[in-house]
Amino acid sequence: MVASPDAAGFGTPAHDSSADPFQDAIYRAAIVDLLGAVAYGEISAFERLSDDSRMAPTLEDKVALQGMASAQHVKVAPIVARLGELGVAPYAAMEPFREPIDAFHTHTAPADWWESLVKAYVGDGLVNDFYREIAGYLDAATRDLVLSTLEDSGRTEFAVDRIRAGITEDHVIAGRLALWGRRLMGEAVTQAQRVIASRDAVSEVLAGGRVPGLDLTTVATMFERITRHHVERMGRLGLAH
Amino acid sequence: MVASPDAAGFGTPAHDSSADPFQDAIYRAAIVDLLGAVAYGEISAFERLSDDSRMAPTLEDKVALQGMASAQHVKVAPIVARLGELGVAPYAAMEPFREPIDAFHTHTAPADWWESLVKAYVGDGLVNDFYREIAGYLDAATRDLVLSTLEDSGRTEFAVDRIRAGITEDHVIAGRLALWGRRLMGEAVTQAQRVIASRDAVSEVLAGGRVPGLDLTTVATMFERITRHHVERMGRLGLAH
Repeated sequence: MVASPDAAGFGTPAHDSSADPFQDAIYRAAIVDLLGAVAYGEISAFERLSDDSRMAPTLEDKVALQGMASAQHVKVAPIVARLGELGVAPYAAMEPFREPIDAFHTHTAPADWWESLVKAYVGDGLVNDFYREIAGYLDAATRDLVLSTLEDSGRTEFAVDRIRAGITEDHVIAGRLALWGRRLMGEAVTQAQRVIASRDAVSEVLAGGRVPGLDLTTVATMFERITRHHVERMGRLGLAH
Repeated sequence: MVASPDAAGFGTPAHDSSADPFQDAIYRAAIVDLLGAVAYGEISAFERLSDDSRMAPTLEDKVALQGMASAQHVKVAPIVARLGELGVAPYAAMEPFREPIDAFHTHTAPADWWESLVKAYVGDGLVNDFYREIAGYLDAATRDLVLSTLEDSGRTEFAVDRIRAGITEDHVIAGRLALWGRRLMGEAVTQAQRVIASRDAVSEVLAGGRVPGLDLTTVATMFERITRHHVERMGRLGLAH
């Protein structure tokens, strides 16, 4: 599936403003992987959010979580279209990511409404941070597509309100949810590492030399920033990291 | 909750083009019920469609059903807003309809993907037919709101394609699905009758005399037309009624 490094011109930055980065078969394969993972992540998030909406204590809360699920769905079609433009079968491109993303959800199945809310908020935040970080290194078309999935405009704010209110009412849940937030982050990192390790093109692109400015040091800094934002988000919920 | 018939001027048509129909407390209560039922129907349909999407044989089919669920969600907010304008607590207005609508779904839980598809298509069709029928008798604001929930533009066509293909491949399922279609229709009628019988304002409005042109004879004709459309829909699926 992935062209050999020699054929793709390993060591040469894959794209500058003039060249078509998709001439580089490895860059192309990495982008197909990225879009496949993002799309399956959204399909899967829809599934989990709609599942979790059953635990909502009120009809209004249920509708709010259904809304978060629907917001995931509308992001799928543009990625499917783009994968098609890139000449790949969109749903086949998602297949490699089903197992790790499903594993993430299986290992972080919320036990109650509070854990659902924290997962919805923290998960959304992590995913958005990752997209924002990676987008800057991509070709313009992919960057715009990835960034277009970010406009979430306060849909998750209801989660913040509910969780803060819940903690005020019952301090005991704060400790449990703080632990839960750490578990979500840990599991996300574990699965992300598994995915990167199993996808040759993604590993190569992240290792550096193909995309200007992107190498293992940048990636490490990126993950540090994502972790810092996670800690800030937990703080916003009134939870210690 | 419902004003007494005398106070509301029982026997006088509730609205013509000049009068405000919401001056009639019974008409108003019936509209609140209608909107509450429609909104909870959509919330509940989201839940069932997203549930059923798990049975999808392919990721593409799953996304299609998630899309049908999301299409339900976007219809909820305008009704919630309208119920607010009418001065009622929107989610409280939905409460009386949870039990019968949930009962409909419990009694028609699809056993497999084929039954899910037929339910999605037939259920959507029945609901849309009912809205189209009733809308013509309502005040302009309510009519426009109800009709705005109808623009479905071929989203269910995928269900028709899939079912027809499935029947071509395996003739045995046609008999079972024909039976299933009858059960869906029967259960819908049963629950609709229960709802009407339990809601005084709705019963009164349907009994006639409050809304010009609407009485028990019109209602009977309405249900005959809905049944006929159901039979046509089953035929479009390649299923006998």
